[in-house]
Amino acid sequence: MTEHVGFIGLGNMGQPMASNLIEAGYTLKVYNRTPEKAEPLVKRGAKLVSHPQEVAEPGGIVITMLSNDEVVADIVSEETGMLPRLGSGGIHVSMSTLAPATAHQLAEHHQQHGVTYIAAPVFGPPEAAAARKLWIYLSGSQAAKERVQPLMEALGQGVFDFGEEVGAANVVKLAGNFLLGAAIEAMAEAFAFAEKNGIERTKIADTIAHTLFACPAYERYGKLIAQHNHETAYLKLFLGLKDNDLVLQTAAASKTPMPIASMLHDRFISAIAKGRADLDWTALSLGASEDAGLSIKGGE
Amino acid sequence: MTEHVGFIGLGNMGQPMASNLIEAGYTLKVYNRTPEKAEPLVKRGAKLVSHPQEVAEPGGIVITMLSNDEVVADIVSEETGMLPRLGSGGIHVSMSTLAPATAHQLAEHHQQHGVTYIAAPVFGPPEAAAARKLWIYLSGSQAAKERVQPLMEALGQGVFDFGEEVGAANVVKLAGNFLLGAAIEAMAEAFAFAEKNGIERTKIADTIAHTLFACPAYERYGKLIAQHNHETAYLKLFLGLKDNDLVLQTAAASKTPMPIASMLHDRFISAIAKGRADLDWTALSLGASEDAGLSIKGGE
Amino acid sequence: MTEHVGFIGLGNMGQPMASNLIEAGYTLKVYNRTPEKAEPLVKRGAKLVSHPQEVAEPGGIVITMLSNDEVVADIVSEETGMLPRLGSGGIHVSMSTLAPATAHQLAEHHQQHGVTYIAAPVFGPPEAAAARKLWIYLSGSQAAKERVQPLMEALGQGVFDFGEEVGAANVVKLAGNFLLGAAIEAMAEAFAFAEKNGIERTKIADTIAHTLFACPAYERYGKLIAQHNHETAYLKLFLGLKDNDLVLQTAAASKTPMPIASMLHDRFISAIAKGRADLDWTALSLGASEDAGLSIKGGE
Amino acid sequence: MTEHVGFIGLGNMGQPMASNLIEAGYTLKVYNRTPEKAEPLVKRGAKLVSHPQEVAEPGGIVITMLSNDEVVADIVSEETGMLPRLGSGGIHVSMSTLAPATAHQLAEHHQQHGVTYIAAPVFGPPEAAAARKLWIYLSGSQAAKERVQPLMEALGQGVFDFGEEVGAANVVKLAGNFLLGAAIEAMAEAFAFAEKNGIERTKIADTIAHTLFACPAYERYGKLIAQHNHETAYLKLFLGLKDNDLVLQTAAASKTPMPIASMLHDRFISAIAKGRADLDWTALSLGASEDAGLSIKGGE
Repeated sequence: MTEHVGFIGLGNMGQPMASNLIEAGYTLKVYNRTPEKAEPLVKRGAKLVSHPQEVAEPGGIVITMLSNDEVVADIVSEETGMLPRLGSGGIHVSMSTLAPATAHQLAEHHQQHGVTYIAAPVFGPPEAAAARKLWIYLSGSQAAKERVQPLMEALGQGVFDFGEEVGAANVVKLAGNFLLGAAIEAMAEAFAFAEKNGIERTKIADTIAHTLFACPAYERYGKLIAQHNHETAYLKLFLGLKDNDLVLQTAAASKTPMPIASMLHDRFISAIAKGRADLDWTALSLGASEDAGLSIKGGE
Repeated sequence: MTEHVGFIGLGNMGQPMASNLIEAGYTLKVYNRTPEKAEPLVKRGAKLVSHPQEVAEPGGIVITMLSNDEVVADIVSEETGMLPRLGSGGIHVSMSTLAPATAHQLAEHHQQHGVTYIAAPVFGPPEAAAARKLWIYLSGSQAAKERVQPLMEALGQGVFDFGEEVGAANVVKLAGNFLLGAAIEAMAEAFAFAEKNGIERTKIADTIAHTLFACPAYERYGKLIAQHNHETAYLKLFLGLKDNDLVLQTAAASKTPMPIASMLHDRFISAIAKGRADLDWTALSLGASEDAGLSIKGGE
Repeated sequence: MTEHVGFIGLGNMGQPMASNLIEAGYTLKVYNRTPEKAEPLVKRGAKLVSHPQEVAEPGGIVITMLSNDEVVADIVSEETGMLPRLGSGGIHVSMSTLAPATAHQLAEHHQQHGVTYIAAPVFGPPEAAAARKLWIYLSGSQAAKERVQPLMEALGQGVFDFGEEVGAANVVKLAGNFLLGAAIEAMAEAFAFAEKNGIERTKIADTIAHTLFACPAYERYGKLIAQHNHETAYLKLFLGLKDNDLVLQTAAASKTPMPIASMLHDRFISAIAKGRADLDWTALSLGASEDAGLSIKGGE
Repeated sequence: MTEHVGFIGLGNMGQPMASNLIEAGYTLKVYNRTPEKAEPLVKRGAKLVSHPQEVAEPGGIVITMLSNDEVVADIVSEETGMLPRLGSGGIHVSMSTLAPATAHQLAEHHQQHGVTYIAAPVFGPPEAAAARKLWIYLSGSQAAKERVQPLMEALGQGVFDFGEEVGAANVVKLAGNFLLGAAIEAMAEAFAFAEKNGIERTKIADTIAHTLFACPAYERYGKLIAQHNHETAYLKLFLGLKDNDLVLQTAAASKTPMPIASMLHDRFISAIAKGRADLDWTALSLGASEDAGLSIKGGE
């Protein structure tokens, strides 16, 4: 394969994703603020560079998997020089969960350097990333999407195209995040209700996950919520708040009231006030149990 | 088969259920307030009786599939004489969605006549009933549950046992209903959010139903909500309110705050105030669209 | 004064009210389930009777100040014989906080005995009752209201007439109770917000009560909420829940969504789950502080 | 009086305030982006200047009454040169509703120029400003507060001191705004409830304003809400949303969940989605009526 691919952001999602690209035959240049995280990839043939600019080849592809809007904006700022080097014909595939408004700003900024910005946010936990089981939502220029399609297929089990409006994939990703949060709160209330009426939490979680709600969201989260098992943070609670804030900001900008998102906001804030910022975001389910006067047993 | 089985309540759920019992080889006596609905069953060999009492054979089994707590209580009241006739060794399998408190009262009342009361609420729309695809939640006396097990298997694709506490299955059923309602409201908000940000409603509904939420609840309801298609009422909205009221009453009795159930209550009341009592209960999703200033196109 | 006046219900409201009627020159017959409470009134000339029926004189007036709908219904049931004795030309002035629906039923039932039922719910704590500072809301037959007007003036500082529709005064009373509950929750949130931003709770309570919210509701409740002082129960929290349930039932019957009433419901249920049923209902304000991770100092 | 006083921001609040300072004997230099608004003040002796910098005298006092955080930040930015000119010994009295966080940033920035920043947000509509009936909340350096005290007394009926922490007055002001918003929503629900139960909206508004809620907030807003009279905008709805956003941001930063503020947020967004951004902010009360299926008659 002749594509020059740069990869920035080797966290618990980025690392297995980069690894799958190597597996698929791509030669990668990788950059991470903490270079130690690149070691496993370097052993498998990736070239570690010491500056964001160096991951880019003129006209090549750069993929970013970073934690938030600000970090992405910093990486493509004038200071790093990454965009001028990527230049005309280059593509930036931005796979983080960002606000659609950020996507619009970034796309315009990229265009000034001849670079095409593609939004490609993903769904799935780190294990799904490792197993090439991510779901990827794409939006942006048709030609660029076609060119990156093979890379996306090397990363996920399904690619969903939301057209040329560059923020569209971000909208759908935020809506998906919101639906997950709503499901967490709903299960939190349902399980507290069941527990107070004499039903074992794990029994009801198991039942719904084998009947009406036999899908990843309820299977996976249902078990964690039933067991109050929030120590292993797939998505840290304070980052879950960040994503929910993006939902609320985008909702406000588009004049859409979202009462469940507002309720989740209050649950997040309360959880952080109680010292749970670094637990998994499913820990926002503890609120419903505490409000019901239940003592929390289990993983907390 | 030597079981004498009576069946009361031949609505759009009861009728296909009774039909499946005939199919499985049971000889049925059936009763319905409106006897015309029994015709298709009579053609297939069921015996139509003109009084609830007559469906019962001493020591036999009676199944009820009725619309609410009051109707079930009426059927087993002293006036009908059904329980004395069913008598010692008899079993009443109550498959409606009732309050756990009602189950407790009925069980005690049945015991005075030597009859065992079993709670067996079901999940699934009429088509699932017809296709033997119901999910059945069971609770009550172990011996009685074992005796009715073959009948339950003739009706559904899965039977879940919640122990001997007779109201337990009702608790789980109410929790399941609540989770469905919460999913409806969450999708209503998510789709309004997507629509206001330029995404087609059916596109996002389809995407989530093929990824994180690939389960009956989101597939089935997601499509109806995306299309504003609420004319065909699988569960009429005013009956959905009744079920949500059972959730809230049971929650209050067990001292469990359920903020999403409270929010759903307000959505139900608003929908009824706007004349939607007889639409499908997914019509409560229209509230989120109207709050966002969207005009409703589609099935309404 | 020639009016024969009976008074039933000598709790912490009824007692000072009956006392004021004696003060105004009325000869009272009084009844209370626990007769000991009548002693101070007997010393001042009231006649204690041992059965509800005996407070009534044919064509006279009976005032009730009882704890809830059921107790009032019991007092006027066929068993007590109170209504037949009161009979044609008699008036029952019902001063408790009842559902408008109850008022309608009672009015119809009274009519069968020729008795006129008047709704006269009151606002004010026991001290206000003692000081003749109650506010009284009246509804029902015009002639009957005119006849009882002097008694009402002996009890309160203001009488507000809501017309002949007998449940109207109850509607306004419930709306007033709801506004108080909403103000309690709003102050709970505002004071938690202030406290977490370095402002003393009593300082902000004092400021608002001297400016925009210089009215009894905010002055009185604001101080209690700021100090977490809920031991002395003017209205026990579980009775506050009862009143809020009347609001929600009346709202549902009239198809009125009331999201703040629903939120208050959840706060009440949570407070009761945490063992606060017998504290003053302002204790529902503790929820907002706990959600913010604040430790509660003060009266609790 | 020897104080040199500059005044920036001559909107419907600033204009009567500046006028009262002239009335009290102060010589004012005034600045407004739209200079025409200064005319009535110029006629009474104020000196209109054409640049923010020119309102300041070294060591003098500058008062600002501007629409939001950004506009205040702009006025004191390096570009205007206002702070260097005001210089050591100078005081800036900032009377707008700002975030406490903004107050902290501004105070630090002012200090670099030797200027003392005082927060002095006000409560009251334009008529109250004209009638010297504002309530003023003060926080910041003790010496500076003492120096500006006479000016504050020329503007309002009461000055409340919240200590030397400069953001404190802003916190209390935001809490007050929140309480007003909560009262608006509570009355909106209560009046819809009353209306649906046959009570006239103006009758209940009048009753509560003469009893438990006999205070400016309920008197003034209650009448507007009862009449659906929102054409004359004392505070435009979109500015009310801005203030509520400041509440939510400050609450989030201090980890305080505020469910009623979140609910108000959704009401604001919905009102704007329905085209009500420029109505008075009491128009958010229309949501409760519409949810109840009521047709809105009156001022809208």
